[in-house]
Order: sequence, then structure tokens, then C-alpha cells
Amino acid sequence: MTGRPVVAVLEGATPVRGLERVAEVAEIRVAQAAGLPAALDGADVLYLWDYFSGALPAAWHAAGSLRWLHVAAAGVDRLLFPGLVASDVVVTNAHGIFDQPMAEYVLGAMLHAAKGFGPLRDSQREARWAWREGRNIAGSRALVVGTGSIGRHTARLLRAVGVRVEGAGRVALEHDDDFGRVHASAELARVVPGFDWVVLVAPLTPATENMMGAEAIGAMRSSAVLINVGRGRLVDEAALIGRLRAGTLAGAVLDTFAVEPLPPENPLWSLPTVLVTPHMASNADSWLDDLAAQFERNFLLWVEGRPLPGVVDKALGYVPSGRRREGLASAREVLAGGGARHTPGDWRRPRGG
Amino acid sequence: MTGRPVVAVLEGATPVRGLERVAEVAEIRVAQAAGLPAALDGADVLYLWDYFSGALPAAWHAAGSLRWLHVAAAGVDRLLFPGLVASDVVVTNAHGIFDQPMAEYVLGAMLHAAKGFGPLRDSQREARWAWREGRNIAGSRALVVGTGSIGRHTARLLRAVGVRVEGAGRVALEHDDDFGRVHASAELARVVPGFDWVVLVAPLTPATENMMGAEAIGAMRSSAVLINVGRGRLVDEAALIGRLRAGTLAGAVLDTFAVEPLPPENPLWSLPTVLVTPHMASNADSWLDDLAAQFERNFLLWVEGRPLPGVVDKALGYVPSGRRREGLASAREVLAGGGARHTPGDWRRPRGG
Repeated sequence: MTGRPVVAVLEGATPVRGLERVAEVAEIRVAQAAGLPAALDGADVLYLWDYFSGALPAAWHAAGSLRWLHVAAAGVDRLLFPGLVASDVVVTNAHGIFDQPMAEYVLGAMLHAAKGFGPLRDSQREARWAWREGRNIAGSRALVVGTGSIGRHTARLLRAVGVRVEGAGRVALEHDDDFGRVHASAELARVVPGFDWVVLVAPLTPATENMMGAEAIGAMRSSAVLINVGRGRLVDEAALIGRLRAGTLAGAVLDTFAVEPLPPENPLWSLPTVLVTPHMASNADSWLDDLAAQFERNFLLWVEGRPLPGVVDKALGYVPSGRRREGLASAREVLAGGGARHTPGDWRRPRGG
Repeated sequence: MTGRPVVAVLEGATPVRGLERVAEVAEIRVAQAAGLPAALDGADVLYLWDYFSGALPAAWHAAGSLRWLHVAAAGVDRLLFPGLVASDVVVTNAHGIFDQPMAEYVLGAMLHAAKGFGPLRDSQREARWAWREGRNIAGSRALVVGTGSIGRHTARLLRAVGVRVEGAGRVALEHDDDFGRVHASAELARVVPGFDWVVLVAPLTPATENMMGAEAIGAMRSSAVLINVGRGRLVDEAALIGRLRAGTLAGAVLDTFAVEPLPPENPLWSLPTVLVTPHMASNADSWLDDLAAQFERNFLLWVEGRPLPGVVDKALGYVPSGRRREGLASAREVLAGGGARHTPGDWRRPRGG
């Protein structure tokens, strides 16, 4: 115990990777859920490689020396339990890693619906040549709900192929570089009638839960399609199912659900105008390596006492896009503890408070 | 018979539309296949609204006064029978109308394959939560085979979303604005190993038939996907089926087949890594209105003796992209007959030859 920082890693089913450089500096304790309290005892850093784990609250009593928690995921809704929120542990997420796969998923979802690939695939299974017209997405109007990193990347990709995009976020803006106009999410029921596509990429927070409620779902155009890559509980699922069953909404592409895995009896599975995908929109190519490389980069920044990217505002429940730099500044303060910067030899100083 | 031009229209199952302005100038004779010879008798113009009809060769004996034939389709492979090719009838096609829907179809096909939407749809039908990773298309490499209007539009759309595109066409080019580099289609077997996507948008001609033969199919990467929106007979279907069945090719998205409708016994229907669509890639939104408006525009140009866009080189079998302006000039010459321009009062002059 020579002042080396201690990094606890919650591993889960997928073996953690890419800790070689971290191990040169830190003591690494890789644990499964049952071993988390022991791993946390005296740990400075917790790396939630198993990003869906619910093991932390039960182990929180052992996290008294924790300063920084990094989660290899974008959404932190399942992570932010009261003890963590009330603490001064800095939380960072996998900011930016999922921008490209999720934006591509959304574009693919739009084209899937526009070209009718779902019904065509169903006809194919019956060896049935069932001609149907497609739609063009160029010139159509998409509302991207969620103005964080993923939402912005999605907006830029959609605009690159000629889709007319606007945004919706916590605060309305007359002009935004990525979205043009940003509407207030609180006004969704009033705003959605103007759009062919409603794309949910928002985080789940008390403020966003059920934001696409019965009224907003009811206000969508009959020709419109809902795409949800955010969280299932953003949507009133019963209201959505009602419109889809009635045939008064063109379709939905859903990667996330109120309950996951989606229970077999859920009617969304069998609605022909719905594409159900198993929470995979964010996972493409080298995403595991990218997550590993990101933690390594962040860890080396932290060792040098430099600001971390992707600091979660624990009160808001996400990384605030417009205020990212403030988030970094506050991270620096917390990391710096009593004012001095951390150095590898200076890890054990207890965090203030 | 006061010198008004006569426009014969082969209608087919879908009612022809948008001839109001043409009717102000011309005598219009709308016919089904059986009535085509009578409609052609003395006609100056034939408008093949029924673009898949094979009725023309049998009616060709009645087409002695024909000067211009417009087909509401892009591919003219089924149209160019020897009598038409040998004649000096100018042939124009629906140049440009299908650029956007086909480019979007190709992009949608790539994302469909990259995100695994086909297998996911199959799992959905069984209410099965079968997680799988996707792939990103950004940074992947696509070879667009066919450098006409549709191929160029496709290349531009793919480049807009970060795909690295090159082209293949009749003539190799070191630099091309849309494709960067254009390879010679004759070299496909040598070229395709460098690409993740091989996208066929070429016309069917004696030179392109079977261009993706057994050797070129065999040369594709095991991780690659073939997309065919050109013509089925560009591809050695048996070789393609062989690689797909063996699992040595990642997949195929096929909108066109050697025999259409695709016969129920064809194994392509049931291969899980194949998406079969019923020759609909070109058909989206207002395509019928767009086709109608295009013929009206062309007709009014023709009345004024001005060059027509989309003139097919009947020897090559398509509208040559690089030589479009020459095509137009030659159309002007033909249309001008003995050198004078046509005027509405000057329709009946027999064409030279």
C-alpha cells in the first residue's frame, strides 16, 4: 500500500478489458457483484464495466473512500440512487462513445419504416412478392427529443441526408447550431403534430419520465413514426400500443422498453408496424474497446488532476450539453479535494465532507 | 387532322395521369397492349407509361411515323428490341426521377444489414429478445457499380454519412467528382475484395450481364454484403446463393432478380441473411406524379424543338452519364429532321430514313 490509487471494477458477464496502462499506476480490484463491498473498501475509483448492474446501493456502505465513479454507459437512470446523488463522488459516463452507432440506428430505423422493410421481411418469410411503395426521408421532418451528445450527433446525421430536423430539450432555444430550433420538452403535445418522426434520445429523469404521455402520443400525425432509443419509461406504452393497434399511427421502432427484456406477452412484439430491437442501438463494432479506451483516457487525466469529460450532473441526471464545461470545472474542484491536485502519490487523502 | 402531333400512350394497369397540358397541344391516344398498333398508326410520340410492357415489338409494324419514345422507367433493357435500336426513333427515359428513392433504398439496405434488422425482425416474430451487436457504416467501404445518375446520387448520399465510396463503370477514371476513383467494371473480380459493400446500380446490357459472375461473387469478403437495385441478371444468382448458403458471405439485399416476380421456390426467399424486396426501390412518394410531370416537361421541350434530357444511347443501352450533352445534341438533330426545328404545325413531316 504505497499510495497507489485503488480502482474497483465491477465486471459482470463480459470480461473487462483494456486496463493494462491503468494497472501500471493503480491497484486494480476486479469484482463480481457479490465481491463489490470488499473491492470498494478503500477504493478511490469505481469503474462500472457492468453498466446494468444494480449491485452498488447494497455495497455503498463500503464506498467511504470513493471519489470518482465511471460507468461504461450513457444513461445513468438506474445508477443514481439517493446515496450516490447526495455524496460528492464525481460520476462520469461513456460520453460520446455511442453517438455514431445510435445516430446510425435512428437513420436506419427511419429508412426501415420509410421503405417498409418490416412488412417486406414478413412477406419474404411467406415467399410472397407483395409490391408496395416506399417513402423518401429527404424533406421529411424529424423532432429529436434530447439535446445531449447523442441527440446532436443524430440531428447532424439526419440533416446530412436531407431530413429537416428540430430538437426538443429541457430549455427552448430559438437558435441552436445542430437543431436550428429547440422546443421545450414540456410542450411535446403541442409540438409533435408538426413532425413525421419523433425520435426519443432523452435520458430518463423525473422530468422526462412519461414525457411522451398519452396526450403527446395522441397528438402525433397518423402518418408519423415514433423511434425510441432513450428509455422505455419516456413513453406511455399503453397509449402507444392503443394508437398502433387502431392503425392511427404509422409505426414505431423501439430499442428500449419500460421492462427489459420485453416480456413475451407484450403486444409490441406482434404489432406488424413495430420493429422491436433488444436494446442494442448503442452497440456496434468496437464499442467495448472504445469503452475501455475511454476509461483509460479518463483515468490518466484523473491521475494528472485534469478535468474529466462526461461529468454527470447528478441533480439533472445526465451530462448537461450546454454546460459541459462547468461540469468539468466542478469535477476539477472535487478531484482537487482541498485545493491541491491529485498526484499518483497523493491518493489516499480522504475527500472533503 | 390539323397538324396536331399524335401521342400514343401505353397505359397498363395504372391509369396514366398528368396529360392535361399535353392534350392542349396534341392528340392523345391512350391504349392498352391490345390497342397499341391502332394507337401507333400515324403517331409521332409513344409514351410508355406501362414501363414493363412487352407489347411494343408486336406493334412495331404500325410505328412507321414514330419519332420519339419516352419510357417512364430508368432501365431500358426490356425495351431495346432490335427494330427499335435500328430505327432512328429517339428514346428517352425517366432520367433522375428515381435517384433519391434508390439512393435512400441503398442507404437503408446498408443500415438494415449493418444493424441486423432482418434477424432482429425474425426474432421479434417469435417474441424473442435476442441481443446482438450492430456495425457502423461510417468508415466502411462501398463500391457503387454503375456511374449513371442513380449511381452518382447514391455515392453522394453514402459519402454524406461517412461511407468511403468508389465507383465502377465502363471506363476506369483516376478521378471523378462523385466517386473519387472509378474502376473498370471488367475488373470487378479484382476490385471487390477491397469493399464491405458492393452496390449494383448498373443497367442491364450485353456488356453488364453477369458482371458479378461466379468469380466476382467468389472474390467478395466474407464480411461483405451485396446490394442489387440494378437488374437481377447482373449477378450469377447461383454463385451468390452458394456463398450465402455456405455462410461465407455476410448477406445480400436484393430488389431485382433474374426472374420477377421471384418464384416461390427460389432459395433467396428463405436465406436468413438476405432481404428480398419486390422491385420497389425506385418507387417512393410522388413518383407517379413525378413521372407524369417529367413527360409533360419533355413534351413541351420537344414541341419547342429543344434538346431532351435523358436520351438513351441505344447502342450502349443506357443514358451515358459522361456524354449526356452529346446525347442531347444528337436528339436535337434527330428531332429537327431535315434541319428545321419542329413546330406544332409541322408534325407530320416524315422522319428521315
